[in-house]
Amino acid sequence: MITSFHPPIRTLMGPGPSDVHPRVLAALARPTIGHLDPMFITMMDEIKTLLQYAFQTKNNLTLPISAPASAGMETCFANLVEPNDKVIICKNGVFGERMKENVQRCGGQAIMIEHAWGLPVDPNRLEDALKNHSDAKIVAFVHAETSTGASSDAETLVKLAHQYDCLSIVDAVTSLGGSPLKVDEWEIDAVYSGTQKCLSCTPGLSPVSFSEIAVTKIKNRCQKVQSWFLDFNLILGYWGSHQKRSYHHTAPINALYGLHEALIMLQQEGLEMAWQRHQRHHFALKAGLEAMGLSLLVEESARLPQLNAVTIPNNVDDALVRQKLLNQFHLEIGAGLGELAGKIWRIGLMGYASRQENVLFCLAALESVLLELKADIQAGVAIPAAMSTLQ
Amino acid sequence: MITSFHPPIRTLMGPGPSDVHPRVLAALARPTIGHLDPMFITMMDEIKTLLQYAFQTKNNLTLPISAPASAGMETCFANLVEPNDKVIICKNGVFGERMKENVQRCGGQAIMIEHAWGLPVDPNRLEDALKNHSDAKIVAFVHAETSTGASSDAETLVKLAHQYDCLSIVDAVTSLGGSPLKVDEWEIDAVYSGTQKCLSCTPGLSPVSFSEIAVTKIKNRCQKVQSWFLDFNLILGYWGSHQKRSYHHTAPINALYGLHEALIMLQQEGLEMAWQRHQRHHFALKAGLEAMGLSLLVEESARLPQLNAVTIPNNVDDALVRQKLLNQFHLEIGAGLGELAGKIWRIGLMGYASRQENVLFCLAALESVLLELKADIQAGVAIPAAMSTLQ
Repeated sequence: MITSFHPPIRTLMGPGPSDVHPRVLAALARPTIGHLDPMFITMMDEIKTLLQYAFQTKNNLTLPISAPASAGMETCFANLVEPNDKVIICKNGVFGERMKENVQRCGGQAIMIEHAWGLPVDPNRLEDALKNHSDAKIVAFVHAETSTGASSDAETLVKLAHQYDCLSIVDAVTSLGGSPLKVDEWEIDAVYSGTQKCLSCTPGLSPVSFSEIAVTKIKNRCQKVQSWFLDFNLILGYWGSHQKRSYHHTAPINALYGLHEALIMLQQEGLEMAWQRHQRHHFALKAGLEAMGLSLLVEESARLPQLNAVTIPNNVDDALVRQKLLNQFHLEIGAGLGELAGKIWRIGLMGYASRQENVLFCLAALESVLLELKADIQAGVAIPAAMSTLQ
Repeated sequence: MITSFHPPIRTLMGPGPSDVHPRVLAALARPTIGHLDPMFITMMDEIKTLLQYAFQTKNNLTLPISAPASAGMETCFANLVEPNDKVIICKNGVFGERMKENVQRCGGQAIMIEHAWGLPVDPNRLEDALKNHSDAKIVAFVHAETSTGASSDAETLVKLAHQYDCLSIVDAVTSLGGSPLKVDEWEIDAVYSGTQKCLSCTPGLSPVSFSEIAVTKIKNRCQKVQSWFLDFNLILGYWGSHQKRSYHHTAPINALYGLHEALIMLQQEGLEMAWQRHQRHHFALKAGLEAMGLSLLVEESARLPQLNAVTIPNNVDDALVRQKLLNQFHLEIGAGLGELAGKIWRIGLMGYASRQENVLFCLAALESVLLELKADIQAGVAIPAAMSTLQ
């Protein structure tokens, strides 16, 4: 007989989900109402307004997709890419590869600009690609690469795209709420994010925003969007106007309560203050890591404050350290992905996890585990194989 | 300044979302853990086992899609339909039309068998279509039509599909947990459902189950599934085996806590007992409605106990009644959709809403409103226009 699940209380300092604020958890448990209830529709309008603030945009088409950020990415590509469209993808980590998959599955042609993992996107290389592919329609890149901790200069990259008559699709999953992101000022055409990173919210929703130019392109498509669920021409009927809502799908009511509460908290703190908080705790963590002899992977100018890629010292067993942190301290940090697997840890300071308490706790726990391992090695203790479930 | 949202406490007796059990709401608020945490992975395995019980299947590929039931529908079609595949769709309500949209967007050809709304699917008409389209690959239909309250004979329809070498896709959004559904015994190939109907859970997830034959077809596709997010060849890497989970997307952790708790409750009650409960309260509601002079749309043999389509009497303002129920009694019932708009109310007795208290409350409130309107008409009181947001 299976019994109720009571999760352990972890401190989430990996690449996301990050610590969820208690106010958000409490909001999730409020009584469910109908997705066409006038009170719910008022809340949807508020979420739209609050997301416009978080994204720094006046875009009318600003809303949370009823699925995780992967679906938000797919929403952008499925709506904007038509068969045979050429899309330039600046890849500097895991998520550029996923963009390529999306473009190809939409029948588009992906032109890849490959960067070493950990580097920001190079605007000169994008400009070369734009010159070589004058028929390209879209430029796509990740603003804040969650797999490496590198931040790219979104404003410059979008400007280049526009100079060469391309639209821009920007992955802001890890930047929204954590570091400067200015959709209107930077003239981003389509942007998607997640709720489980710097918004202190649970995973499962994907805030997106589309410019008027992008909306026009979607409305004038030659053929239907290949996904019914993600087709903006249909979703707009539900989220578009307060006066007349047409049923599209049943919204994830309680998850939206959580997002509403998280966005209220962002509004109360102030967006600039939230950015500064993430920066401040990053500096504190960095100072502590350096004092322990550890170093960060990404060069200083491109470091994300909310996602710290820490180079794993030689002779230190990556998975064993993470396993000990989890089992002894209930602390989760992230592993490296792809070509950085085994080479970095990813320490997130996102949203509610970007706090003084978390910085001090993480530094102390990590130091304790590293010292313990060092002592074990010196004493000749056999090291158990790391658990395979900890990747 | 926007403030925290505190929803009113409604009684949800429409077509879904239905009343959510307090245990499920409480589970949503439990602390978030990581989506690769060993404890979470154990919970995923439990959800799989519990869903296998709910679906009455041993299918290994049984899991909740991280998005609402519309995405579950799309998962079935996007994975099983290849370009130019002919799919026979038995349509007897709103959701057959959505199936057609799905098939066409996957590049397939939809053969429609149109039924009057409110009727069950006619097996003879399916057999005729199978004879006329011997190259058809798939038969799709809705087991429990939420838009009309009609139940179709899934076992017979699936058997016919197999006789003519077709796979079957079955929409069980409203039947799962509410009325008999036996995936293995009926040899259903692909089935999708929702959490917000008879499981007493919040909306936002879509339980699905695929037979071995369906899985083989997916693995042997000629071209990739057009959706990255819904591609089972990728999702299987995350949900497939306990030993080695590969990152696909960040699961909606807290929503899954809720589903886990809802499924535990179903296991505790017992599936057959849950089916009987839905039947019992349907009979009570029906007796009360008939005593008030109201009648049900669907013929007795095809009536769904969990979704009661009530014919609106002549001269009664549909929207005004629903508005008064909502404003005076905090009671939500559903409107008719499509060709049944203005002609029926849809009274749901689903999951936690399928209770004696709800039946009595709904009957009393509806009678009160109808008597009030009758008195107003007799007294010559002008009737205000119904609110446009109540559809």
